[in-house]
Amino acid sequence: MKKLNTIPSADGFRMPGEFERHSGTYMIWPERPDNWRLGGKPAQQVFTKVANAIGRFEPITMCVSRGQYDNARNMLADYVKVVEMSNDDSWMRDCGATFVIDDKGNKRAIDWTFNAWGGLVDGLYFPWDQDDKVAMKMCELEQVDRYRLDDFILEGGSIHVDGEGTLLTTEECLLSEGRNSHLTKEEIEKVLCDMLNVSKVLWIKNGIYNDETNGHVDNICQFVKPGVVVLAWTDDENDPQYAISKAAYDYLSNETDAKGRKLEIHKMYTPSPILITKGESSGVDAVDGTLPRKEGDRLAASYVNYYTGNGFVALPIFNDPNDEKAIALLKELYPDREIVPIYAREILLGGGNIHCITQQVPDVQVK
Amino acid sequence: MKKLNTIPSADGFRMPGEFERHSGTYMIWPERPDNWRLGGKPAQQVFTKVANAIGRFEPITMCVSRGQYDNARNMLADYVKVVEMSNDDSWMRDCGATFVIDDKGNKRAIDWTFNAWGGLVDGLYFPWDQDDKVAMKMCELEQVDRYRLDDFILEGGSIHVDGEGTLLTTEECLLSEGRNSHLTKEEIEKVLCDMLNVSKVLWIKNGIYNDETNGHVDNICQFVKPGVVVLAWTDDENDPQYAISKAAYDYLSNETDAKGRKLEIHKMYTPSPILITKGESSGVDAVDGTLPRKEGDRLAASYVNYYTGNGFVALPIFNDPNDEKAIALLKELYPDREIVPIYAREILLGGGNIHCITQQVPDVQVK
Repeated sequence: MKKLNTIPSADGFRMPGEFERHSGTYMIWPERPDNWRLGGKPAQQVFTKVANAIGRFEPITMCVSRGQYDNARNMLADYVKVVEMSNDDSWMRDCGATFVIDDKGNKRAIDWTFNAWGGLVDGLYFPWDQDDKVAMKMCELEQVDRYRLDDFILEGGSIHVDGEGTLLTTEECLLSEGRNSHLTKEEIEKVLCDMLNVSKVLWIKNGIYNDETNGHVDNICQFVKPGVVVLAWTDDENDPQYAISKAAYDYLSNETDAKGRKLEIHKMYTPSPILITKGESSGVDAVDGTLPRKEGDRLAASYVNYYTGNGFVALPIFNDPNDEKAIALLKELYPDREIVPIYAREILLGGGNIHCITQQVPDVQVK
Repeated sequence: MKKLNTIPSADGFRMPGEFERHSGTYMIWPERPDNWRLGGKPAQQVFTKVANAIGRFEPITMCVSRGQYDNARNMLADYVKVVEMSNDDSWMRDCGATFVIDDKGNKRAIDWTFNAWGGLVDGLYFPWDQDDKVAMKMCELEQVDRYRLDDFILEGGSIHVDGEGTLLTTEECLLSEGRNSHLTKEEIEKVLCDMLNVSKVLWIKNGIYNDETNGHVDNICQFVKPGVVVLAWTDDENDPQYAISKAAYDYLSNETDAKGRKLEIHKMYTPSPILITKGESSGVDAVDGTLPRKEGDRLAASYVNYYTGNGFVALPIFNDPNDEKAIALLKELYPDREIVPIYAREILLGGGNIHCITQQVPDVQVK
């Protein structure tokens, strides 16, 4: 497929909301033993649950390294499409293509540069060359042309759009030193507007407390539909999360979206703080250059890291009293979708959750 | 996709002739330096020509290792679909899936065991584990279920079918010690009949002289359509090829196909003997366990190793006076297809030709 040098918005393309119709979902199989405990085996069980669950609703493709191909094929349901794809880790949301569509039934993709959440400044591993090829390889599999940005770093988890001109992100991430520090905030906004066809960027200050991605927005805030968001929340003023969520709430309450609407904000209570246990920590290879997983470290647990697809919402749960609150909230907000809760501590131990390991391919639309 | 344990012919599936309509073609990118001279660079140029040519007529997928992915993507035309797939070498005909179809619009595949043309007896390299996974991975990409034969060795180049119940093969290959020597000729026939839905197996004795595949039929004889074959030929009685071709001609002349038809046999003159030059030999890594490419060795050159697709025939030529004869013959035999001659000495140097590096995916049919 072609590598394009034009501007998606000028070409009539926009990024649709995740809640718009998909033609499928992509994931990457976890395996690196310096991030996933016990050689990735417990994580593979949970990724299998997530993929099998999504596959009940829409086509699902699992990208797998040469070495893990047979194992993944055997573990996953027959209806999961398994394709070989080299990778450095399994965060499809962040290294995968961002698909855009026009109103004439065409689809393309944005292939941002990926640098493992901060490159040589504060990235989480080195090298990340295989991750950075994932978007291109997805474009070949999907047979869509791609806009490649060789000089702009972005992960899919650092943005959410409403499909109607509004983008949500965080300053903590997009203004971080390890990404596009050669650009001003206004220049970064312009790239987002050009590439995704948005006209209003909402800048939440920080992401979830102790989130190793420099505070990806997809762990703290998500569009349910245009004009409606969920926001990770705690009432515990002693929790460092409180001030972060409060600041985001206040900011969003005083903003309007691209269409001039005030946002309807739903508080989504986080689980109680989740810490890495000694047993969990000891199962991870200790390797220089990869973020260590230390006993007692607080994980960036959030229900907001759910994934929305055709007729379903895949929701991470943690065996916490707030699981039921999260489920109830989503049932209310998504009356036409099946809420699929999946116990996801193993994904969290790797540094993210269900939204971080999935990437939607929107369906084409003709208007 | 599913692994099936039933019998394709009992399930109503048959292998269609190569000349029937395709939904596409698969190839594998060449790179191993102990088979392809100069790190595979000259071969990659020719594989690119073949893929780009086929892509003018039907969808073409190039399977490429992790290490060569970027280079292949850059060399190939935009319309060639490039997917990552590990391999041990680039003989898609032999390790690829054999697709079968029924009359109701369904497609499946046979996933034979591949052992590098003879395994530990007289195979051409070791190991071959990645090649043996190619068919499974194609089935995932094509989203078709597969019949896996764990105890039957076969390469796609050792069979041709007319789609109407007749199969062409050679005794030299199918009865070789390194393949299914635990089975009798009759037992091997039964597997072919069960798997491909044929009722008549035509056993040519030998393939092309000095063919390292133990005489694959696809280098010596091919169905143009039911009832019509081309046969590699020489009039030079001093050429060891003469006796081989003569025996095949005599055998086929006295046989009938599954429908009881006598075969119309067209002699296709081989080029003059082609020997490996010193320069060519010196460009190949000398490695224990891989068949050496020695100066002066005669290559198994044959025009019969052409590939038929939707509206075209891709024909290897050798800068030989008989090139024109081969082109003229195919123009006569395929009046509705474009004959695309490609100078293919580089593929020949690796041990095969255009047919050996391609595998068709038949289109579904409803009758």
